[in-house]
Amino acid sequence: MSDLKVVAEPGRQDILITRTFDAPRELVWRALTEPALQARWFGLDETSTEVEPTEVRTGTPWRVVEKTGNGETFAFRGVHHDVQRPERIVRTFEFEGMPGHVSLETLTLEEADGRTEYRVVALFQSVQDRDGMVASGMESGMAQSFDKLEKLLPSLG
Amino acid sequence: MSDLKVVAEPGRQDILITRTFDAPRELVWRALTEPALQARWFGLDETSTEVEPTEVRTGTPWRVVEKTGNGETFAFRGVHHDVQRPERIVRTFEFEGMPGHVSLETLTLEEADGRTEYRVVALFQSVQDRDGMVASGMESGMAQSFDKLEKLLPSLG
Repeated sequence: MSDLKVVAEPGRQDILITRTFDAPRELVWRALTEPALQARWFGLDETSTEVEPTEVRTGTPWRVVEKTGNGETFAFRGVHHDVQRPERIVRTFEFEGMPGHVSLETLTLEEADGRTEYRVVALFQSVQDRDGMVASGMESGMAQSFDKLEKLLPSLG
Repeated sequence: MSDLKVVAEPGRQDILITRTFDAPRELVWRALTEPALQARWFGLDETSTEVEPTEVRTGTPWRVVEKTGNGETFAFRGVHHDVQRPERIVRTFEFEGMPGHVSLETLTLEEADGRTEYRVVALFQSVQDRDGMVASGMESGMAQSFDKLEKLLPSLG
């Protein structure tokens, strides 16, 4: 069972996303940061994902491309502001289809009793940008991605 | 005369900073992005500034260190998310003395009649972070910096 929560309080510029994974933090970290693993869970069920080769560390850029069966592509990019393995990543995020709308994401991973809490605060340049992201179907896309991630984790143990 | 404005509306997570410089945009861009020039205006009047060698382009890190006469140092760092010469920079910003409090800055430069409007929107992870930055004396520090920048610009023409 997924305990995904997406909280967007009225009038604020941020979204809080939490989800627990039944795996140690080290495995969740690997699945989030190794490009070959990230490509296996990130994105909608019906798309394929390419993660550009990236060393996830402070000061590096990142880019991910989703491709649909129709040949459409959706690309996302940003830079890693701060990376503290295996517990914290601060990075920027931009959907290339809406250039100029940049968000700042802070990810933290906390482990307790062999389970890991994934927590992201995503901060937007305006309430409108934030509300637009919520309205885009982000939550169902994330639910699909995280369910794939949950299934991938046991194979990494 | 400086027309510096620093606007922090109650309850929001951002600060809007505007200031006009009596110089073409290309010169303002150079003063903002060339490390040797930035070191001449950034910071308080009584400090010296070192700007680490940086190529200001999408995906690169940056770091600036201010030193007081007492030997204290104050360092700031981040990454360039997007750089569009000579009009726009999106970057992250963190004061190393308060690690983990990261802001996202969007700079735009617009030229009209040979003068350039500098505009920054700085976005904070919380209203408290934003209010803390305002209370830190940011505005008087920026006023000093920008006055030095204004004086520097004619020598670049």
